[in-house]
Amino acid sequence: MTNDKVMTSSRSMASKTPVGFIGLGNMGSPMAKNLLKHGYPVIATDVFPESCKELQDLGAQILDCPAEVADKADRIITMLPSSPNVIEVYNGPNGILKKVKKGTLLIDSSTIDPSVSKEMAVAAEKMGAVFMDAPVSGGVGAANLAKLTFMVGGVEEEFTAAKELLGSMGANVVYCGPVGTGQAAKICNNMLLAIGMIGTAETMNLGIRLGLDPKLLAKILNMSSGRCWSSDTYNPVPGVMEGVPSANNYQGGFGTTLMAKDLGLAQDSATNTKTPVLLGSLAHQIYRMMCARGYAGKDFSSVFQFLREEEGQ
Amino acid sequence: MTNDKVMTSSRSMASKTPVGFIGLGNMGSPMAKNLLKHGYPVIATDVFPESCKELQDLGAQILDCPAEVADKADRIITMLPSSPNVIEVYNGPNGILKKVKKGTLLIDSSTIDPSVSKEMAVAAEKMGAVFMDAPVSGGVGAANLAKLTFMVGGVEEEFTAAKELLGSMGANVVYCGPVGTGQAAKICNNMLLAIGMIGTAETMNLGIRLGLDPKLLAKILNMSSGRCWSSDTYNPVPGVMEGVPSANNYQGGFGTTLMAKDLGLAQDSATNTKTPVLLGSLAHQIYRMMCARGYAGKDFSSVFQFLREEEGQ
Amino acid sequence: MTNDKVMTSSRSMASKTPVGFIGLGNMGSPMAKNLLKHGYPVIATDVFPESCKELQDLGAQILDCPAEVADKADRIITMLPSSPNVIEVYNGPNGILKKVKKGTLLIDSSTIDPSVSKEMAVAAEKMGAVFMDAPVSGGVGAANLAKLTFMVGGVEEEFTAAKELLGSMGANVVYCGPVGTGQAAKICNNMLLAIGMIGTAETMNLGIRLGLDPKLLAKILNMSSGRCWSSDTYNPVPGVMEGVPSANNYQGGFGTTLMAKDLGLAQDSATNTKTPVLLGSLAHQIYRMMCARGYAGKDFSSVFQFLREEEGQ
Amino acid sequence: MTNDKVMTSSRSMASKTPVGFIGLGNMGSPMAKNLLKHGYPVIATDVFPESCKELQDLGAQILDCPAEVADKADRIITMLPSSPNVIEVYNGPNGILKKVKKGTLLIDSSTIDPSVSKEMAVAAEKMGAVFMDAPVSGGVGAANLAKLTFMVGGVEEEFTAAKELLGSMGANVVYCGPVGTGQAAKICNNMLLAIGMIGTAETMNLGIRLGLDPKLLAKILNMSSGRCWSSDTYNPVPGVMEGVPSANNYQGGFGTTLMAKDLGLAQDSATNTKTPVLLGSLAHQIYRMMCARGYAGKDFSSVFQFLREEEGQ
Repeated sequence: MTNDKVMTSSRSMASKTPVGFIGLGNMGSPMAKNLLKHGYPVIATDVFPESCKELQDLGAQILDCPAEVADKADRIITMLPSSPNVIEVYNGPNGILKKVKKGTLLIDSSTIDPSVSKEMAVAAEKMGAVFMDAPVSGGVGAANLAKLTFMVGGVEEEFTAAKELLGSMGANVVYCGPVGTGQAAKICNNMLLAIGMIGTAETMNLGIRLGLDPKLLAKILNMSSGRCWSSDTYNPVPGVMEGVPSANNYQGGFGTTLMAKDLGLAQDSATNTKTPVLLGSLAHQIYRMMCARGYAGKDFSSVFQFLREEEGQ
Repeated sequence: MTNDKVMTSSRSMASKTPVGFIGLGNMGSPMAKNLLKHGYPVIATDVFPESCKELQDLGAQILDCPAEVADKADRIITMLPSSPNVIEVYNGPNGILKKVKKGTLLIDSSTIDPSVSKEMAVAAEKMGAVFMDAPVSGGVGAANLAKLTFMVGGVEEEFTAAKELLGSMGANVVYCGPVGTGQAAKICNNMLLAIGMIGTAETMNLGIRLGLDPKLLAKILNMSSGRCWSSDTYNPVPGVMEGVPSANNYQGGFGTTLMAKDLGLAQDSATNTKTPVLLGSLAHQIYRMMCARGYAGKDFSSVFQFLREEEGQ
Repeated sequence: MTNDKVMTSSRSMASKTPVGFIGLGNMGSPMAKNLLKHGYPVIATDVFPESCKELQDLGAQILDCPAEVADKADRIITMLPSSPNVIEVYNGPNGILKKVKKGTLLIDSSTIDPSVSKEMAVAAEKMGAVFMDAPVSGGVGAANLAKLTFMVGGVEEEFTAAKELLGSMGANVVYCGPVGTGQAAKICNNMLLAIGMIGTAETMNLGIRLGLDPKLLAKILNMSSGRCWSSDTYNPVPGVMEGVPSANNYQGGFGTTLMAKDLGLAQDSATNTKTPVLLGSLAHQIYRMMCARGYAGKDFSSVFQFLREEEGQ
Repeated sequence: MTNDKVMTSSRSMASKTPVGFIGLGNMGSPMAKNLLKHGYPVIATDVFPESCKELQDLGAQILDCPAEVADKADRIITMLPSSPNVIEVYNGPNGILKKVKKGTLLIDSSTIDPSVSKEMAVAAEKMGAVFMDAPVSGGVGAANLAKLTFMVGGVEEEFTAAKELLGSMGANVVYCGPVGTGQAAKICNNMLLAIGMIGTAETMNLGIRLGLDPKLLAKILNMSSGRCWSSDTYNPVPGVMEGVPSANNYQGGFGTTLMAKDLGLAQDSATNTKTPVLLGSLAHQIYRMMCARGYAGKDFSSVFQFLREEEGQ
C-alpha cells in the first residue's frame, strides 16, 4: 500500500476540508452529525433519500451516489450493513473507486468479513487511494454521544489522520494492525460480549429461581470474579438497572439480528482459521434461534426474556 | 430457626473467645491463620494431622475431632471439600452436633449443594445452634491476603456476628438471604466466571489466529463491551499479564477439578429448578473433559492451552 | 441380595396368582390391562381413584394403598412418575414394605435415578423381598400394543420369573445386569434418542432451507450413514410420514416434559460419574427451554417446530 | 441451463467412449478403477504424478492437465478435496473450461460449498457444457467395493446419463434436485452422522461408567429408539463390533479432518441461510478440537477415545 506523505500532511493541516459520508442509517446518521458538530463540512449519500433529509437540514451536501462523493472529498467514511453493500459502494458501477482521487483516505466503519476489507484495500491501492477498516463498538447510544470505540486496521502511517477524524465521533480510536485487524478486533469483542450476555442472563435466571434477589445477585457478581460488562453496565434483568433496554421492554439498543450477524462473521472467521469456539458457536446459534422466535427486533439483552417462562405457565 | 439474642450479644462482646476451625486444606489453612492474626484463639482439627502442624506452630490448639471442637468453642467455621464431608463433620458419629452447645454459631464456608446446607441448618436448629452458609470467592491468593468475598445465607439477625468474624478473613462479607442463598450466590458467580473464562480463551485464540497481538487484543476487550474479570484481571494467555497462572505455566490458582465440581453443583441446581443454562451446561462439560485430558491439576485458565494446537502440529 | 429359590419356582408354577399393580397413569393403565388380557388377576391401586375405574370395570380388584396390595400379592409392578413417588410408594407410611411378604418379587418400571433403585433394593432385601428395576421404552403406543421394551436390572436368578410376567406387556425383555443397570440402559437410550431427534430436526430444517424436498431428504438419510430411528420411524417433519405425531400436530406420543425429565436423569448420572456428555447436556437444555416456551405438552418431535420460524415472520 | 438432447442420447448409446477422471486420491483412485472394471476407457490426470501410476498400469491414459482431458473426453468426473481445487480445475489457466467441448457432461463428486457448485454450473453453461454436483457417501471402503451413494444435483434430463456412469461406482445414485442440492444432501447427511457418532460415543461411555457391558448396551440401543448407523454399523467402542475402525485402533475409515471439513461446510450453509443448528454447530466444534488434540489422522469414531480418560489417570 502506497504511502502518500504529501497528501497525509495536507489532510492533517486542512482538517476542515469536506468529509464524505456514505451510509446514513441508525449508526451513520449520528456519526455524520457529530462530524458536522466538529466543524467538518459533510458531503453525503445514501440509497434511501429519506435518510438524508436530517443531515441536509443540518447543512450536509447530499449527492446522488458514492462516485460523486468520491469526486468531491479526499476523506470518505462508509457505514454499511454488510459485505455485499461494501463491495457495491466501493467497486460497483457508481462506486467510490470509479472516481476516487489519488491519495484519498477511505475509512470503512462497517462490520464485515475481514477478507472483504483486504480485497477493498487492494482495489483501493490500485487507484492510489488508502483503505482502512475501522469498525465500531458502542451502539446507537455511543454513536449519539460521540463515545464510540473505533478499532482501526491499515497502514500505520495513516493512523494519525484517521484518528483525528474519527476522534470527533468516538472516545477511543485504537490502532489494531494491518488491514483486516480492525474487523478481527470487533468480531472478537462482540463474540465475547454475546457470551457474557447470555452467561449473565442464564446466571441471573438461575439465581432468581434459587431464591436470590436480582439486584443483590447483580451486586455480588459485580464485586466478584463473575463480573462483566453485561452484568455491571447493561444488566438484562428488568429492575436491576435504569437506563438500559431491560428497563424499557428491550427497546432500542443493539438488536438481536445485528448480534446474530456479527456472530455469523465470528463463526465464519473461526471456521476459516480452523479455530474451536465452542461457546461462541453456541452463542451464535442461540441468537439465531431468537431471531426465528420473535426477538429479532429486540435488544440483544432480551435473551433473558427468551430463557424465562412464557406468561401463563 | 431460633434466635438467641443473649448469645448473639455475648458473641459480639466477647469477640476474642476461641473460634473453632474444621478443615485445614489449601483454603482453610490461610483462613485460620488470618483469624490468629486478628487475635482470635483458634481451636482446630482436620482429618489429616499433617495439615494441622503449621497452625499448631502458630499457636492454635489442635483437637482430635469436630465434636471436641464443638465442646470448646461457641463459634465454629468449617471449610470442607464437598457435601458428604459436610454431612460427616456435622452429623457424623464424632460430628459437631454430637456436642454442640446451645446458641453456637456454625458457619460453613464449604461450597456444596444448597439443599444440604438447608438440611444442616434444620439439624443444627434441633440442637439449639444456628447454621449459616458462607461460601467464598477469591481463591487461595485472596485467602492468604484476607481478601476473600463471603456470600452469607441464614437468619439475618446473626449476620452481624458472622460479619465480624468473617471480616478478619475477607474484604467483602455479603448477606444474601435465607440459608442456602450463600451457596446459590457462589454457584452463580462461578458459573458466570467459567463462561467468561472459556469465552475469553476462545476469543483470545481466535484473535491471535486472525493476526491480532494478544496484549493489544486484551487491551481493546478491556476498554470495550467484551470486558470481564477473566480478560482484565486473570487473562489466560501467556505474556498478556504478570502475576497470574498463565504467566506461570498455569500452576497454582483455582484448579480445573474444583471448577468442574462447582459447575456440577450449578448444573444440579439448574436441573432441580428446571432452569435452562445452555452456556453454563457446556462450560461444565468442557471443564469435565479437561479433567479427563490431563488438565485436572492446572489452573482453570488453562482452558486456553486446551483449545490451542498441541506442540508439533 | 438373598435368593429365595423355593419362592421363585412357586412364582413360575403358579403364574396366574394375582399380580399387584401400583400406578395407573398413561403407561400403567394399558400395561395393567395387558396383564388382565393374559389371564393374570390384577390387584391395583392409584392415588387418583378415577384412574382405577377403567381397570375395575375390566375385572381388577382395587385397594386403597400400596401396603394393602403388598398384603395380597406376591408379585408387584410399580409404574410411577419420579423418584419421590417411588420412595413414598415403597417406603412411605402406607408403602409396600410395610406389609410385603417374604419372597415377594417387586418390579419397578418407573424411570428414576439408578441410585434410588439401589436404595429400594436394599430396603426390600431387609424385608426379605426381591427388587428389580425394569424401566420401559416405547411410549404409550407400545404400552397399548404390548410391545414395550423392558430393561431389567437385578439378581439374575429372578430374571426368568420377571421375564414371564413382563412378557405379557412387552415384546423385548432384556437383562442388563445388577440393580440399577435397567435404569442406566433406559437413561442411555433416551439420551441418544433425544440427540438423534434434535439432530434430525436440525438436519431436515437445514436441508429444506437449502432447497431439498423433505421426503426426498428423509429417503436419502435413511439409506445412508445419517439414518436413525428419528429419521426413519418417527420423522419430525409434517408430511414426511404418516401415523406419527408430526402428522398430527405433535399430539400424543412422548411428551417434551417427559423427555426433559429423562435427560435430567442422564445429566445427573453423568455429573455423578464425572462423564463428559456435551451433546447430551445440550439436548437436555434444549428440551428444558422448549418446556418453558409452550412445547411442554407436545410430542418431543415438536423440536422441529421449535427450530422453525414462527408464523408471520 | 441448456439441454442438449442429441448429445444426451449419444452419451447413452456410445457408453463406452472415454471417461475423463480428474483427482486420483483416496477416493478418486478406487472410483476410476471401478470405471475401468466396467469397460470404460479412462483418461485421467492428477496434480501428483505418483497418484497416476496405479491407474496407468491398469490401462488408463494419463494426461498432463484438466484442459487436455477435456479435449479428449465428453464425460468427465472430478473428485477433489475442496472448493479452491474445484475452482482451479474447472476455471483455472489449464482448467476444464479452457478446452471443454460443447455438450460435455461434467460431474463433480467433490464435497464443496453448494454455492461454488452453482458458480461452476453457470460457467459451464456459458461454454455449452452441463455441470452436475454428485458428492458421495460411504468412504474409502464403499469406493473400493463400488458401493458408494451418489447424491446428484443438476438438470433432470441429464440424470439418466449420469446415473449410468455413476452406477459403475456406486450402489445408490439419487437425484436430489437442481444444481447444489446434491451437495446439500451430502452436507445434511454428514451433519446428522456426526451428531449420531458423538451421541453414540457419549452414550456408550456413560453406560459403561454406570456399569453396563458395552456389547449389551449396544444391543439394547440397536433394538430401541436410540438406534442409529453409528451404533449398529460403525460402533465406536473397541470390542463391540469387528471390521470397523474401533476394532483397529481407529485406523482407516473416514478421517476426523475430513469430518471437520464437512461440518464446516454445513455450518457455513446454516449461517448463510440463517438456520439454527445447535447440535450440528457443537459437533463441528468438537471435531475441530479433536483435530487440534492429535486425532486429525484417526477415524471420526475416535471421538469415543477423545471423551475417555487418558491412560494413567
